[in-house]
Amino acid sequence: MKKLNIGLVGYGFMGRAHSHAFRTVSKFFDAAYEPVLKAVCARDASKVKDFAAQWGWESVETDWKTLVKRKDVDLIDIASPNDTHAEIAIAAAKNGKMVFCEKPLGLNAAESEKIVKAVEKAGVPNMVWYNYRRLPAVTLAKQLVDEGKLGRIFHYRAKFLQDWTISKDLPQGGAGLWRLDVKVAGSGVTGDLLAHCIDTAMWLNGDIESVTGMTETFVKQRKHALTGKVEKVGIDDASAFLARFKNGSLATFESTRYARGHKALYTFEINGEHGSIAWDLENLHLLQYFDHRDEGATRGWRSIHITDSDHPYMKHWWVPGLQIGYEHSFIHQVADFLQGLETGKIPGPSFRDGLATDYVTDAVLSSAKSGKWVKVKQA
Amino acid sequence: MKKLNIGLVGYGFMGRAHSHAFRTVSKFFDAAYEPVLKAVCARDASKVKDFAAQWGWESVETDWKTLVKRKDVDLIDIASPNDTHAEIAIAAAKNGKMVFCEKPLGLNAAESEKIVKAVEKAGVPNMVWYNYRRLPAVTLAKQLVDEGKLGRIFHYRAKFLQDWTISKDLPQGGAGLWRLDVKVAGSGVTGDLLAHCIDTAMWLNGDIESVTGMTETFVKQRKHALTGKVEKVGIDDASAFLARFKNGSLATFESTRYARGHKALYTFEINGEHGSIAWDLENLHLLQYFDHRDEGATRGWRSIHITDSDHPYMKHWWVPGLQIGYEHSFIHQVADFLQGLETGKIPGPSFRDGLATDYVTDAVLSSAKSGKWVKVKQA
Amino acid sequence: MKKLNIGLVGYGFMGRAHSHAFRTVSKFFDAAYEPVLKAVCARDASKVKDFAAQWGWESVETDWKTLVKRKDVDLIDIASPNDTHAEIAIAAAKNGKMVFCEKPLGLNAAESEKIVKAVEKAGVPNMVWYNYRRLPAVTLAKQLVDEGKLGRIFHYRAKFLQDWTISKDLPQGGAGLWRLDVKVAGSGVTGDLLAHCIDTAMWLNGDIESVTGMTETFVKQRKHALTGKVEKVGIDDASAFLARFKNGSLATFESTRYARGHKALYTFEINGEHGSIAWDLENLHLLQYFDHRDEGATRGWRSIHITDSDHPYMKHWWVPGLQIGYEHSFIHQVADFLQGLETGKIPGPSFRDGLATDYVTDAVLSSAKSGKWVKVKQA
Amino acid sequence: MKKLNIGLVGYGFMGRAHSHAFRTVSKFFDAAYEPVLKAVCARDASKVKDFAAQWGWESVETDWKTLVKRKDVDLIDIASPNDTHAEIAIAAAKNGKMVFCEKPLGLNAAESEKIVKAVEKAGVPNMVWYNYRRLPAVTLAKQLVDEGKLGRIFHYRAKFLQDWTISKDLPQGGAGLWRLDVKVAGSGVTGDLLAHCIDTAMWLNGDIESVTGMTETFVKQRKHALTGKVEKVGIDDASAFLARFKNGSLATFESTRYARGHKALYTFEINGEHGSIAWDLENLHLLQYFDHRDEGATRGWRSIHITDSDHPYMKHWWVPGLQIGYEHSFIHQVADFLQGLETGKIPGPSFRDGLATDYVTDAVLSSAKSGKWVKVKQA
Repeated sequence: MKKLNIGLVGYGFMGRAHSHAFRTVSKFFDAAYEPVLKAVCARDASKVKDFAAQWGWESVETDWKTLVKRKDVDLIDIASPNDTHAEIAIAAAKNGKMVFCEKPLGLNAAESEKIVKAVEKAGVPNMVWYNYRRLPAVTLAKQLVDEGKLGRIFHYRAKFLQDWTISKDLPQGGAGLWRLDVKVAGSGVTGDLLAHCIDTAMWLNGDIESVTGMTETFVKQRKHALTGKVEKVGIDDASAFLARFKNGSLATFESTRYARGHKALYTFEINGEHGSIAWDLENLHLLQYFDHRDEGATRGWRSIHITDSDHPYMKHWWVPGLQIGYEHSFIHQVADFLQGLETGKIPGPSFRDGLATDYVTDAVLSSAKSGKWVKVKQA
Repeated sequence: MKKLNIGLVGYGFMGRAHSHAFRTVSKFFDAAYEPVLKAVCARDASKVKDFAAQWGWESVETDWKTLVKRKDVDLIDIASPNDTHAEIAIAAAKNGKMVFCEKPLGLNAAESEKIVKAVEKAGVPNMVWYNYRRLPAVTLAKQLVDEGKLGRIFHYRAKFLQDWTISKDLPQGGAGLWRLDVKVAGSGVTGDLLAHCIDTAMWLNGDIESVTGMTETFVKQRKHALTGKVEKVGIDDASAFLARFKNGSLATFESTRYARGHKALYTFEINGEHGSIAWDLENLHLLQYFDHRDEGATRGWRSIHITDSDHPYMKHWWVPGLQIGYEHSFIHQVADFLQGLETGKIPGPSFRDGLATDYVTDAVLSSAKSGKWVKVKQA
Repeated sequence: MKKLNIGLVGYGFMGRAHSHAFRTVSKFFDAAYEPVLKAVCARDASKVKDFAAQWGWESVETDWKTLVKRKDVDLIDIASPNDTHAEIAIAAAKNGKMVFCEKPLGLNAAESEKIVKAVEKAGVPNMVWYNYRRLPAVTLAKQLVDEGKLGRIFHYRAKFLQDWTISKDLPQGGAGLWRLDVKVAGSGVTGDLLAHCIDTAMWLNGDIESVTGMTETFVKQRKHALTGKVEKVGIDDASAFLARFKNGSLATFESTRYARGHKALYTFEINGEHGSIAWDLENLHLLQYFDHRDEGATRGWRSIHITDSDHPYMKHWWVPGLQIGYEHSFIHQVADFLQGLETGKIPGPSFRDGLATDYVTDAVLSSAKSGKWVKVKQA
Repeated sequence: MKKLNIGLVGYGFMGRAHSHAFRTVSKFFDAAYEPVLKAVCARDASKVKDFAAQWGWESVETDWKTLVKRKDVDLIDIASPNDTHAEIAIAAAKNGKMVFCEKPLGLNAAESEKIVKAVEKAGVPNMVWYNYRRLPAVTLAKQLVDEGKLGRIFHYRAKFLQDWTISKDLPQGGAGLWRLDVKVAGSGVTGDLLAHCIDTAMWLNGDIESVTGMTETFVKQRKHALTGKVEKVGIDDASAFLARFKNGSLATFESTRYARGHKALYTFEINGEHGSIAWDLENLHLLQYFDHRDEGATRGWRSIHITDSDHPYMKHWWVPGLQIGYEHSFIHQVADFLQGLETGKIPGPSFRDGLATDYVTDAVLSSAKSGKWVKVKQA
């Protein structure tokens, strides 16, 4: 089996998820390539060594500039905070490395455009970690839409609800909290949560043409974890928008970290002429499907338990009825990429797909300021 | 329109439900006969007058023996406690009245045999109020089974869970509490709750051949509401049994008033070769249906919202999506009876059907004593 | 008991629901007043006679102008199409009658202003039939919000989804279809469905300050049922908007008749600092409630089965666990009104409350045209 | 870190699940010991080599008798069919190895007694793979019961429903189908599915005193996959029983492979004086909890999303809202065992616990034959 040497940047939540995916994929999926945990990179030498030891990374680096030049590394995987993505991705591409990058691609679309330009110029395979596409229920939704099961689409609605930043005492910035620091994150829930909703939406339902949005920052000031000072909060705590898709369908999108009782309630629903589909991340193993062509008296929403061998990815796991979890989406993304290497057809979401999402989030933020509908730039 | 003069005995919970059904049915259902609230009977003259005034009963009686002889009464409806059923029903039949009777028919099968003999000898139309058959979801279940949608049946399971008698301070006997007094009720949950489960089960799945049961009285002594004395509790607080149906399917049944968190959770599920059906009374407007012949990847339990015009009884009510409630089952039973008067084909559950259920409850109670399987007598 | 003589205009879907409420309320609720079904009015003499006979209306009229002058009528109840509301309501008020009116109040806010002026000038009791406020689960939601159980409110979201007009072959206008005729209905889903969402929202969460909306007509032309000609469709098939409430919370609203699989899925959710509430009309007997102050490990969304005697209105009905249905909301509205007559404190929603909702729907329609945020006029 | 050298027997469904657990546990859990995949054993030399290569087992054996004697192996993990458990486990114990064994322990209680005797005589740590105890929701249920949250227990009910053997064309015996061969499996669903239900039940609710059971074989003959001949089916396709626990509570248990629409629906519910708990394997990340001490009007079943850091095991995984899957239960069992090695307190389920379950399944099978209640032998 051919080896694919990985160089990972970052060891946070996503660093763990990616490490697990790289070291596990070949146990459950057959592919011509096998990922090798070659090197992990982070600034704190002691912590990165511990992380490497725990996860089996063969070596460590403390400067990503060294990492991206290493001959024994084929692919750079960026799992560090958003404000580091562009520089690392561009450098990796220039060094001819394949590149994976956590979402959102850049701090904004302008940055993302540069990243896309770099990878496309270098001609290197690239993927952005919009991992939810590869939860089996979501992949099945894609298949059903593509097969025309829903007919003409009228409506799309999505929301991503969390409740972890309601407390005013939560500081902004610093380890585990950089998502609250606008300089590091770029935006609040728009880039963090809505971006997921938008990526799935365009994958399932095509391009978004125009949007009108609204954002809010409920807690206006927070202590900064690094400076210790109370500073103005720059991120959006909540963000919602109306949209029109190119196919004529209407949409509503919403995300917030102030929806008490929801931890990671990403939901979407799509209504078509012949049927509808609904899904939520807090029950990721189920897909709700309504087929109007079923006989009248027994027509109803079907709750499909996505654990059968005829469901996407599931024949690689256990037996019918037994759930998989969140982390499996990362494994599936790697599995598909490895297969793409073999076939020469790298699957999405590419960096260009990531840019398309950034165009939408930029338009939402811009509309939220202007109060007007904004036409979305197409990637 | 022809009039059907009703004489009601009892003004408790069931007296209200029946009164509502009789006075409402003709507003929503067309029939050749219209019920007239002719007379209501109870021992307390003052209370029965108030009840008659509130509900529009034309006259009152304080002795059912007078009521059953009234020339201007066509049908005697028995909604008084269980220990009164036999005597009233037999007298009504002898006087040539049609008879409705609350369930269970008698205090035990021996009593019920006499009642059945009386109505069949008199040749008078009769129905027992196993009203749950006529919730639209349950009627639809019956249709699906009869159409063969499930194929060969392997399993039936039912339970009826409540939690209202857990407190040791609850007295036994007296108004509203006669269900705890074995002399008045005949048995505890077996006759009260299991009887409902059994009636539906045999309607859907045919005769029960044999059972093995278990009962328990968790609170052994209670103050009697009428005598004021602490007395031994004679009823069963919980009752469960295993059963074999004539068609070869296996079943489990359970009922209790000690299942914390459940108010009236009557549920049944039936599993066949090609499909399955599940229902529960606490969401009485839904039917769960699984059709194995659906395409593999989109196969799932269908949650059918039983509010469409192609669902049983529903075209008589509102518009799709809008629920009806518990009391509508009584209205439906009257509507079907009125139609039966017209066609000459009185629908079930007849008193003989009620006797069949009593044979099963008797067998369960007998088995619970002997610890052995008991063959069920067939009605 | 005092009599309250009702004169009803209209015998369609709402005419039936109101008739049932008037004739049933006194059976389940005690009040100093009892509604009398005095007269029903509609243009078709034959049909209105049949309706009166079926429901027990004492007399009929074919001209509402006669009805509103009848000395033996205390209250005019308007259940005819939207384009008739203003004229009838104003005339009724001028004749000193109490007035009930189906929603939306007028074809638009300008009309509604005139109606409000008339009833307030006449000083007559008035209510608009936003009946969903009086489903017990919704009333309980109101109580919880008013008790401060949720703390500061961050988010409100509501939608009302149906699917009954997807077919292009459905004609517009005529009996049962006037809701598709803009001249009769005033608007499409905005006035029909969103209006319900807005009424509940402002009742629960206070005034709406500003909105930005979007509407769509998916089927552009339909045969008109009365003229037989294919005509341009004037109503909105779908309508969505973003909103900001006076209390600082953000909201999303959506309604459509193109959401396959949903018959009457009116849902709302409200997220506060300490807790959240969610409800949907297709399971109207349940309320979902999350209390963040519950102990961490056992914290979860509570599914409250709204059938206990300590739930609003429920002690008047059956026993715990047994559902009521859609029509009970009308009965509750009448019951509350009768009690209001006794106490002299007429409960809402008043016509002024109805006007407040019309100001919002007007703003939504205006914003959908201009593409801009619109400030909502306050009633 | 100290090494714990594992020798695995079997490479089927369970061989994969165990391999994954051993190689993954140290990534997510800190412990003094780290499992080493030392050797895997199976009769087919070629297949076992492939399996070892895929999963990273350092060496292979084709005779378990060699494996159990290897000096470099500390722990024998038995994941081969049921008829091999006893011999291997006893030999492993005699060689002083720690032993893990898939459930059920032996083909019957008589065999299991010998196994227990062997490990207890040898004094070696041992665990049986009743892995469902270690799904976080189930572990939380145990904590709530132990804290007395439910008060006195009245009822326990469990079922395990599958539908994979309904087809008459399915052969018995052979790879992947040995569970249908009574000689290899010992029994049908009783040992396979009910055993899981019983283990959890006794863990949560204490010892079972007596049972009355019923079994059925719906498909009486099947082709044997190895002999090619149509042979009588010896296993039970369905098995149900009533039980009484030592604490006075009543129970119903059922398992079947003929419940259309259910893949792995293991459910249990426990009703106590103050509260109730319900759970099902097809939504393994949820626990339903009812607390009667909640305030009346807002009392309801809580749906607890078991993904928070204050839920058992979950702080080792992702962030709140993100599910884990089936295989994590195996990882947790290994994690607890490793911690037990450190503290010297090996956690259950021990082989003796496994024997206790076998006493119950033996009693159920015996009762199903005799038709009588059977007293359960205590382990």
